Amino acid sequence: MIDDKTRELNLERAELPGKRAMKLHPIYKGKIEIVPKCPISSFDDFAVWYTPGVAEPCLAIKSEPDSVFDYTNKGNSIAIISDGSRVLGLGDIGPKAGLPVMEGKSLLFKYLGGVDAVPIMLDTKDKDEIVRTCKILAPSFGGINLEDIESPKCFAILDELRDSLGIPVWHDDQQGTAAVVLAGLINSAKIVGKKLSDMRITLVGSGAANVVLIRLLRMEGVDPRMMIVVDSKGIINRRRGDLESDPVKWPLALDTNEEQRGGTIEESLKDSDACVALSRSGPGVIKTEWIARMADNAIVFACANPIPEIWPWEAKEGGAKIVATGRSDLPNQANNSLGFPGIFRGALDVRATTITDGMCIAASHELASVARDGNFNEERILPTMEEEDLYPRESVAVGIKAIEEKVATIHKSREELFSTASSVIKRARNLHKSMLSSGFIEPPPP
Amino acid sequence: MIDDKTRELNLERAELPGKRAMKLHPIYKGKIEIVPKCPISSFDDFAVWYTPGVAEPCLAIKSEPDSVFDYTNKGNSIAIISDGSRVLGLGDIGPKAGLPVMEGKSLLFKYLGGVDAVPIMLDTKDKDEIVRTCKILAPSFGGINLEDIESPKCFAILDELRDSLGIPVWHDDQQGTAAVVLAGLINSAKIVGKKLSDMRITLVGSGAANVVLIRLLRMEGVDPRMMIVVDSKGIINRRRGDLESDPVKWPLALDTNEEQRGGTIEESLKDSDACVALSRSGPGVIKTEWIARMADNAIVFACANPIPEIWPWEAKEGGAKIVATGRSDLPNQANNSLGFPGIFRGALDVRATTITDGMCIAASHELASVARDGNFNEERILPTMEEEDLYPRESVAVGIKAIEEKVATIHKSREELFSTASSVIKRARNLHKSMLSSGFIEPPPP
Repeated sequence: MIDDKTRELNLERAELPGKRAMKLHPIYKGKIEIVPKCPISSFDDFAVWYTPGVAEPCLAIKSEPDSVFDYTNKGNSIAIISDGSRVLGLGDIGPKAGLPVMEGKSLLFKYLGGVDAVPIMLDTKDKDEIVRTCKILAPSFGGINLEDIESPKCFAILDELRDSLGIPVWHDDQQGTAAVVLAGLINSAKIVGKKLSDMRITLVGSGAANVVLIRLLRMEGVDPRMMIVVDSKGIINRRRGDLESDPVKWPLALDTNEEQRGGTIEESLKDSDACVALSRSGPGVIKTEWIARMADNAIVFACANPIPEIWPWEAKEGGAKIVATGRSDLPNQANNSLGFPGIFRGALDVRATTITDGMCIAASHELASVARDGNFNEERILPTMEEEDLYPRESVAVGIKAIEEKVATIHKSREELFSTASSVIKRARNLHKSMLSSGFIEPPPP
Repeated sequence: MIDDKTRELNLERAELPGKRAMKLHPIYKGKIEIVPKCPISSFDDFAVWYTPGVAEPCLAIKSEPDSVFDYTNKGNSIAIISDGSRVLGLGDIGPKAGLPVMEGKSLLFKYLGGVDAVPIMLDTKDKDEIVRTCKILAPSFGGINLEDIESPKCFAILDELRDSLGIPVWHDDQQGTAAVVLAGLINSAKIVGKKLSDMRITLVGSGAANVVLIRLLRMEGVDPRMMIVVDSKGIINRRRGDLESDPVKWPLALDTNEEQRGGTIEESLKDSDACVALSRSGPGVIKTEWIARMADNAIVFACANPIPEIWPWEAKEGGAKIVATGRSDLPNQANNSLGFPGIFRGALDVRATTITDGMCIAASHELASVARDGNFNEERILPTMEEEDLYPRESVAVGIKAIEEKVATIHKSREELFSTASSVIKRARNLHKSMLSSGFIEPPPP
């Protein structure tokens, strides 16, 4: 139990990042910039990097298209593509308003994974236009990270692009979040001494991430009949009249919820071992007294952005043993920032043609293992982004799995992959440090 | 007259950049990278730059869309968009093979103009698809630089986009090249002591740049009847049976070529004061003996890439007084690199909604003026890229003209514009120097 004063302090602390963001964003006017990465010692060098010299690499690529990976940055560049239709927990705020998020994502891609990621906001919400635009943009990029595209159209967009472009296409709100939450569940199960495959799991929200999470959990041995899924209208079951034509939810109605429970989130949580909420910004979406009805040693993932469905202190009041959220300012951040930088690093380093579910699960296990190698406890079921070697280890796991599953174009040993990823990521961070210390980036006002 | 040995040495020197490009491109694997430009002192800062703090700037933009310029890098970001259908003088080599050029362009945009430019190669050649894709991509960008898109579709694409997006859309092969060549002609006229508006001008090639150049020359007072245009089938005149349905060339047949000459390039050059060739890679497209038939003190712009229509030493043998090419390794480079970085800098700094022909001409005059302020002679009719203050001066001229023409969103004084542009460009170059000296970019092998 926490008192009112503490609750108020917690709330105030939770509002700080937004206030600081409003102060700092207009000072820096964006989060990323483009810089030359090849040497320019004099203006004569432009004859090599641009006309006339550049004609030769162009002709080389024309005769051997795959050599574009040798002569350009394609192999380290991805596009972050969003229509702004489901940004954070803010819903459909449109392409311009979504840009600060995608620039932030690009910053994380570079700082955490050494990946050059270009934020591209689309001025269309049409599924087919989005697919077509991604296909048209593909030549410059070694991968595409779809982001904050609303459900259910995001499923069809990913399915259509995932295997057709010859480069990894990934929707971070599907596979990325699912992979990180899975890692957290693997470790939470270990802490509470339950087997993941024996657990009753409630999934609040049937959007992008939870649908993929259910698929990954099944691959990990969890019986779908022990899962209960709740959407905005209540528990998903076969008696609901509104689901039969839904290509995503009807299969869930058939496969999950053995008891065919109906009702609200409250009902879904009864005797549940774990709740994974990826629904809408809280607080108050899940209540303390509902958590109290869960099984002993309950595990609660309240991952809505920007505010979790229930504040951790409220969930703990209800008896939760482990609470995770998506926020970086709270313990157990199950944020997808733990996944995408390392997963894309790994996929790019073996020039994978896609990112399979197997590669996602490999990332989850490595993430979980990194956490266990550190100071592992109920307030630290997942590694933090600071963890030494987190992203290189994750990228190796993903790269090796890609090689095993025969979707890698380049074959490298674990040692080589680790060494490449480590040095690329270290360089990115050291470069940033150097830009700070030499004044190319001004320090923030206090 | 030059001897065979010198000619051979010249040729060998001209081939060096291509050889070095093939050696260096695979070492650096691309020319640009993305780096954070806001400070990250600890991982806690991600709560400000990304979730949860970033939600606040998103909401601010949602309620006031133009504030996207305050909270993001949109105001300094442009897209370099190409379908690879007319790359350098290499023709239609496709989107992958065109990428090295667009990365080089991005490098120049940053190093010369402080502009963050994202190379985006399109996997379509369809005019309508290109237009639609540009419109869909616009939200992230403060401008669009179309590049190396074949004629005649490039005209329709630019026309459709130029005034519809509310951000500057520019086709560098149209306005960019035309603006730089115009600057060169203004200064060449001064050197040979002729008035530009009295000159007979032959235009070899009726592609993107020459069509716009004709428009700009008319605005500068040159009588179209004194111009002769040559396309791949010969001199454009009203007797040609193949032009009546051509929306670009038929107006030229009506307006230019008072004598209604017919024939080849050779015929078009007779008594001409200036020849502007923007046609196909040479050498040998224009011959020494044809130059000999031009008027005294002939001016020859042989601007095809990668090899000029006639080598400068051959044109001089034919009696040309002034020769310019597009190559950075020869004197008088009439390369568009003298234009676009400063012109976009100026357009972005006043947040212009378009780039008018008036802004292009303002850039031409400032370019010409910078050259005259330096060591001005027949081997130096244009400034070189090294020129102190070239790009800031050009950007001021463009920004002020945008304000005059009421297409600027932000009004600033000459002094303010100059100071902003200077410091942004200096920062870009100093940052590159710092990356070189601190080892983040390896020096090239000898």
